[in-house]
Order: sequence, then structure tokens, then C-alpha cells
Amino acid sequence: MAQIERVGVSLEKELLADFDKLIGEKGYKNRSQAIRDLIRQQLSDERIGNEKSQGVAAVVLVYDHHATALMEKLTQLQHSHLLQTISSLHVHLGHHDCLEVIVLRGKVGEINKMGEKLISIKGVKLGKINLLAADSL
Amino acid sequence: MAQIERVGVSLEKELLADFDKLIGEKGYKNRSQAIRDLIRQQLSDERIGNEKSQGVAAVVLVYDHHATALMEKLTQLQHSHLLQTISSLHVHLGHHDCLEVIVLRGKVGEINKMGEKLISIKGVKLGKINLLAADSL
Amino acid sequence: MAQIERVGVSLEKELLADFDKLIGEKGYKNRSQAIRDLIRQQLSDERIGNEKSQGVAAVVLVYDHHATALMEKLTQLQHSHLLQTISSLHVHLGHHDCLEVIVLRGKVGEINKMGEKLISIKGVKLGKINLLAADSL
Amino acid sequence: MAQIERVGVSLEKELLADFDKLIGEKGYKNRSQAIRDLIRQQLSDERIGNEKSQGVAAVVLVYDHHATALMEKLTQLQHSHLLQTISSLHVHLGHHDCLEVIVLRGKVGEINKMGEKLISIKGVKLGKINLLAADSL
Repeated sequence: MAQIERVGVSLEKELLADFDKLIGEKGYKNRSQAIRDLIRQQLSDERIGNEKSQGVAAVVLVYDHHATALMEKLTQLQHSHLLQTISSLHVHLGHHDCLEVIVLRGKVGEINKMGEKLISIKGVKLGKINLLAADSL
Repeated sequence: MAQIERVGVSLEKELLADFDKLIGEKGYKNRSQAIRDLIRQQLSDERIGNEKSQGVAAVVLVYDHHATALMEKLTQLQHSHLLQTISSLHVHLGHHDCLEVIVLRGKVGEINKMGEKLISIKGVKLGKINLLAADSL
Repeated sequence: MAQIERVGVSLEKELLADFDKLIGEKGYKNRSQAIRDLIRQQLSDERIGNEKSQGVAAVVLVYDHHATALMEKLTQLQHSHLLQTISSLHVHLGHHDCLEVIVLRGKVGEINKMGEKLISIKGVKLGKINLLAADSL
Repeated sequence: MAQIERVGVSLEKELLADFDKLIGEKGYKNRSQAIRDLIRQQLSDERIGNEKSQGVAAVVLVYDHHATALMEKLTQLQHSHLLQTISSLHVHLGHHDCLEVIVLRGKVGEINKMGEKLISIKGVKLGKINLLAADSL
């Protein structure tokens, strides 16, 4: 079990009221949890700004399923030694379009390079690299 | 088959050289493809700014697998009539942490609300809502 | 003087240590201040997502100073009744290029429209609309 | 005068129609200009991702004008040899709040460090570092 500490935070009354309202709308049950999430998000944003830190990313692609080169590229990718974990999710969006979510793990710099290669494959209409988090979550 | 048109674009020589270099690094095979991707991305960004347009999103969550409330919430979600498509991908990140990618389809405003509810569940350490694209890709 | 409240926040020991390290690097003197800033940023991000809320924005443009249409447009803008406050800052970047920061105040939706008009003026090479904050800071 | 080249771009008819509609709304007079802007933005985004490239940034701060430490810090900043150009714009937002836009020029990494120091000064309520562009615009 993680050890818990309790710290005191001073806040303007009005700021606190606005925050309570916002986190209520978002569905949070208590302030500690909402503040922990803010802190974790800030730490994560900081780490994924560093090319050399370990990260996890979800690369999301929308492509025409006639884009056969994509599948070859994905197979190649699985034999790459630079990126450690690969999982993927496939969703049929319509007659032509598919959505593919590919989870990559490795160095932030390597993930970005791989993501860009995937997005630039012919037939990929839209692509985003969503860097998420670093090693010590 | 989609009908193709050919348009002429005027560019400063130096800008074109920089662009050719960049898209080469990204792995593009030709300019038309790279420019089409830029245009699609801009159109998509515009649409997902509108609460009422239809969108697709990948909500990515990192959570401790002891967060049982998450699974209940996910089940509830699948019985919601507001969001049309739900798929998900689960990855084990380590001893405690799991990564879950949930693909949602529906109105951008509804997706955001649902995403925020998921992120605020106790036990979720990190969460991001990645809006991707709108109806007519 | 704003009334101050003190609230207790529970945090995992390790998360707290990482946060203390990060805010030390950023130059913060104490945790309360860093957490207040996180909260204010979250509230502001929420508000500027709403087209109808009052906001302040810095529109930054890089343009060739031969772009005379820009100056005319700026003059027009000052006679617009939709946006309340306009200030601007001009910096010479080099032989050809100028940087202009234009501060706009008004409804978020109106600011975005005006910003897009400025960015699309012939001669503007780069432009960004940086929405900042809402009415009740 | 910059030398102009003309290149041909192939696009799906529907994508082109959507693009024409969007850029019309944004106020663009022709496609070449809108595409040039997309390309410049992509090149700029790429460069400002690199810590070592030269950049220009607008750091925007909202602060209570009783925050006297800010002014001292700004003075200090002007004697720093790492950042080359400093201009600033000051706007009164209300009874207590001021908005300050500070334009910095130098290495992207140095700009980020300086920006974070400014944002973490006591009394600064909101702050954003808006990296804009790199050396060869």
C-alpha cells in the first residue's frame, strides 16, 4: 500500500468555491482526489516533454481499409526492438474508414518517430500521437 | 472511388524546400499526400471544436486495477443511449497500473461529459480525452 | 483582501515528493501557491472552452511589414463594438518580419472570429490565438 | 523578393470543397495563401519542439499589481545575457488584475525556463508560455 501524507493548502475562499463547483460537475467525490489528479497530470506533462524519458502513447489513426501498406508497416513495427509494448484496437467507423488505436511504450523520442511514420503512411487520413505518461506513474 | 481534383499552389522557394525536408523526415512519399493530411487535420480540429458535431474520441485512462468502480462505470456506460459506439483496449503497464483506451462515438459535447466522468472515477490516476474527428471524414 | 481558507489534502508520499521536486525546479516557494496556480489554470481552461464566457486573449502575429492591409484591418477592428479592449505590442524581428501582440477582450466566440480574421490577412505568416482567462479571475 | 514556385496538389473533390468553405469563413482570399499558412505553422511547430532552436515567445501573465516581486524579476531578466530581446505590454484588466505580455527571444529551452520562473512568482495568478516561431521564418 502507498503511504499517504496529509498537507495543508491555503486558498482564497472564492477560488475554492469555484473549484468545488467545477469538480462537482466533473464527478469528483472529494477535493484531495481532484488535486491529486491535477498534480499527476502536471508531472506527466513535464515528463513527456523529455525525449529521453520512458513513456506510453496511444497513436490513433483513421484510415481507409484499402490502405494495405499500413498493415505491413504494423507488422514491421512489431519486430522493432526499440519499442517494447504494442497493443492495438480496431474500430469500423463506416463503409471505408477504420480507426486504429496503437499503444506504444518506449522512449518518448522513439515513440514520436514511430508515430510520425505511421501517420505518414499512404491511406491514413487522420492521425494523432497522444503521449500519456512516463515510467514512474 | 473518390473524385480527384488537381489545384495549383504558389509557394516561396525556401518555404517549399523546408517543407520537402520536413515531410521527408516524417516519411511522406509526396507533397500532395502531406498537404491533404494538413487540410484534413485542420478541418477535423475545426469540427471537434463544435459541441454539437458528431465525433469520435479515444479516452485513455491509467488506473490501479483495484479501482473496481471503474468497471461498474464502464458497464453503465455501455447502456447509455447517448453514445453510439464503444470499444475498449486494455494494457497491463505494471504490477498495479493498467491502461485502458475507450473509443466513444457521439456528439462532441456528450463525449466530453462522459470522458470527464470516467477521468474523475476514484482510482484513475491519469486520463485524457482525445477528440479525433467528425462525421464526414 | 481576499478571505483565505485552509484545506487538507491527502497525497501518496511518492507523488508529493515528485511534486515538491518539480515545483522547486519551476521556482515556487511553497506548495499552496503551486496548487492554487494549478486550480486557477484548470478553471480558466474550463471557461475559455465556452464560447459565451467573457475572455481575454493575446493574438500573436508574425508578418512582413509590407502587409499594409493588416494595419487597415487593425484600425477597423478598433471601431468594432463587439470587442471591448484593444492594446498591442510591436516587435521588429528582422529585416522583413514583425511580431505583433494584440490583446482582445470580449466573448470567447467573438475573440476567436476576430483572431481568425487577423491571421488570414495576406502577409501574415504565422498567427496564434492564445485564450487566457475569463471574467472572474 | 522571395522566389515563388508553383506546385500541383491532388485532392479529393469533397475535401477540397470542405477546405474552400472553411478558409472562406476564416477570411482567406485564396487557397495558396491558406496552404502556405498551414505549412508555415507545421514547420514552426516542429522547430519549437526542439530545445536548442532559436525561438520567439510571448509569455502572458495575469497578476495582482501588488505583486512587487514580479517587477524586480522583470528587471533582473533584462540583465540576463541568455535571452536577446525583451519587450512587454501591460494592460489593466480590473481593480486588482493586470495582464502583462512579455516577448522573449532566444533558445527554446532557455525561454521555457525563464517563462516558468515568471509564472511561479508569487502574485501571478495565471501564466502561459506561447512559443511561436523559430529563426528562419
